[in-house]
Amino acid sequence: MSPFTGSVRAAERWSHLRVAEDDGVVTVTLDRPDKLNALTFEAYADLRDLLAELSRERRARALVLAGEGRGFCSGGDVEEIIGETLSLDTAQLLDFNRMTGQVVRAVREAPFPVIAAVHGVAAGAGAVLALASDFRVADPTARFAFLFTRVGLSGGDMGAAYLLPRVVGLGHATRILMLGEPVRAPEAERIGLISTLTDEGGARPAAAELARRLADGPALAHAQTKALLTAELDMGLSASVEMDAATQALLMNSEDYAEFHASFTEKRPPKWQGR
Amino acid sequence: MSPFTGSVRAAERWSHLRVAEDDGVVTVTLDRPDKLNALTFEAYADLRDLLAELSRERRARALVLAGEGRGFCSGGDVEEIIGETLSLDTAQLLDFNRMTGQVVRAVREAPFPVIAAVHGVAAGAGAVLALASDFRVADPTARFAFLFTRVGLSGGDMGAAYLLPRVVGLGHATRILMLGEPVRAPEAERIGLISTLTDEGGARPAAAELARRLADGPALAHAQTKALLTAELDMGLSASVEMDAATQALLMNSEDYAEFHASFTEKRPPKWQGR
Amino acid sequence: MSPFTGSVRAAERWSHLRVAEDDGVVTVTLDRPDKLNALTFEAYADLRDLLAELSRERRARALVLAGEGRGFCSGGDVEEIIGETLSLDTAQLLDFNRMTGQVVRAVREAPFPVIAAVHGVAAGAGAVLALASDFRVADPTARFAFLFTRVGLSGGDMGAAYLLPRVVGLGHATRILMLGEPVRAPEAERIGLISTLTDEGGARPAAAELARRLADGPALAHAQTKALLTAELDMGLSASVEMDAATQALLMNSEDYAEFHASFTEKRPPKWQGR
Repeated sequence: MSPFTGSVRAAERWSHLRVAEDDGVVTVTLDRPDKLNALTFEAYADLRDLLAELSRERRARALVLAGEGRGFCSGGDVEEIIGETLSLDTAQLLDFNRMTGQVVRAVREAPFPVIAAVHGVAAGAGAVLALASDFRVADPTARFAFLFTRVGLSGGDMGAAYLLPRVVGLGHATRILMLGEPVRAPEAERIGLISTLTDEGGARPAAAELARRLADGPALAHAQTKALLTAELDMGLSASVEMDAATQALLMNSEDYAEFHASFTEKRPPKWQGR
Repeated sequence: MSPFTGSVRAAERWSHLRVAEDDGVVTVTLDRPDKLNALTFEAYADLRDLLAELSRERRARALVLAGEGRGFCSGGDVEEIIGETLSLDTAQLLDFNRMTGQVVRAVREAPFPVIAAVHGVAAGAGAVLALASDFRVADPTARFAFLFTRVGLSGGDMGAAYLLPRVVGLGHATRILMLGEPVRAPEAERIGLISTLTDEGGARPAAAELARRLADGPALAHAQTKALLTAELDMGLSASVEMDAATQALLMNSEDYAEFHASFTEKRPPKWQGR
Repeated sequence: MSPFTGSVRAAERWSHLRVAEDDGVVTVTLDRPDKLNALTFEAYADLRDLLAELSRERRARALVLAGEGRGFCSGGDVEEIIGETLSLDTAQLLDFNRMTGQVVRAVREAPFPVIAAVHGVAAGAGAVLALASDFRVADPTARFAFLFTRVGLSGGDMGAAYLLPRVVGLGHATRILMLGEPVRAPEAERIGLISTLTDEGGARPAAAELARRLADGPALAHAQTKALLTAELDMGLSASVEMDAATQALLMNSEDYAEFHASFTEKRPPKWQGR
């Protein structure tokens, strides 16, 4: 548990997500299969608060985000979100959209890799959650649909207009966000939107295996790699080089770095501690 | 017509471009087929002024940029531009190069999608005009030649050194801008420089069809998607997420968003109004 | 020789690199084939100082970076660097990592194109040196291994977390830097990490040929193209367009631009002077 804890108490249970922990690997499952895991106001809030809590504590060394049933996530629920927003006032609309954006920021800023296990549809906010993840492990049934313009909204939802061009380039991103057409697995792999393409049904086991490997490895090195990738998208070359230098100097004092050298000298595999 | 009009009068006709309008779709044709649509000082000025006018008025909801004859555009005319610039003084050279840059900025900042319909050669400034467009609809005869170094100039002309790495990545962009070799349609598609590859002769009809579809759709959502893609290339993650939130809150008050929900509830196609 | 020289004397010889010059083409060979060209503290310092010297002088118009023997470069030597760093204090660790970063900055900021000729392994710092180069000319034996996390360090070493997403996109970059797995030639070509793929054994001759062509061409135009590509990664659209305009106005006063027009008019090949 973090030594930096004040009055706020952790959630006793997560009512709108299924959350499991196993020795450093946290698995978050969107679990409304009858609605293709459509998101509700409460599910967004739980994602925001869960990621904040995990980012404060040191238990999580990798996180898998998956969907129960026929697909990953169909996005915001048409009735429970779109219908409801029609009666919100301007300040409430801004609050809602800020909350969804905070989920994406929390994914990008979490000090552990986030792996989306994608099968079937990843639509709307579901597509952006996968996009914001560090890895997209997907099977051939995966399709990413940034369908915001199809409901009259901007394709730039929850940071998508920032993230997608940086993953697939501005040309593909413009086409995908403007038209809202689904990107199926073969195209997604070709343009760099999929990290690992598995056999059908293989996304969840492959994501779990990757998470285990990351959690059992030099987890502090992984966390800093992610932090630098996230930060340096927004930085210039010279500042990035300086940030890299300070980070490596820091990690050259870490136990894992010394352990690598010892294991190499002793011709044995390293025992990573993540610190 | 825009309510925000002062003393400046619109052009009565565009003498150096062919311009047609049809219910929200503006088609701009470079029309000097005997010169492969080489650009002149006057054609640049007309592009700059036309885009500014269309951006102020609300008539255009999509724009097609095409070339008459054997190709899209061979770039700046060797005699009428390169020859002339040799006798310009330093301030005039800067004015000319600023004008060409303003055309690219006007394409990127126009509040409607711009679709380049490319067949045959898109060279020099022609290649950059296509690059700055939101969509590049091209047929198999298309070839993009950023040939600036071949005339002793920098490959970074009219924003090309900014745009091309963001479309195809820094490695391809360096090779293409430094060497000035033509990028033919198969490579252009592979590296993400083409949005849609059509059959031979199909670029113009496909571009017209796409423009019609965009103009008849939720055009304000398209315009904001483009504005966010353009702006967020130059912004950090947290500011981008905030900008997305404010934009979605704005559009959740739009007629098209309410219309989507009504049409979904009534199980009928939406009637988009673009506002 | 540069007119801007003070008290500092150039190195009389480079003891830790093999350096050859031939009419504007500088070839730098990492030459410890028994150690797969592993880098030492002294080799980094020589790279830093050589690039600084060449950037001040006007002799180099293109640079080839190659490795002797079975591969390009295996990165920092496990004993001579990793072992040594375990006994450095914090300030020394920062100094070392800043030096390696200065090499990458020097490659990116050098006023001439840098061509990495890659065969066999390009690992760790070797992979980043190739990544920082303007061109990666590689043969089918090439493999790029950003294996920093494998030794307990951050994947963001020497600017890699800045550069790699801008070359191959954030998705591939995250996977490659986080996992440290080798990227073999076919994947490297597919994702845009290789500029030119040659036949086996063809990387060095192809790199030499490219360097010769660049050095004999409009070298000032090449240098400014590189400078704009480097700078505009860190700039916004409007500032980039202004920088392009000023650069083209500058080069329109150059001898090579006038020579292009003369040669075109006289229907003969241009005689480039690089100024």
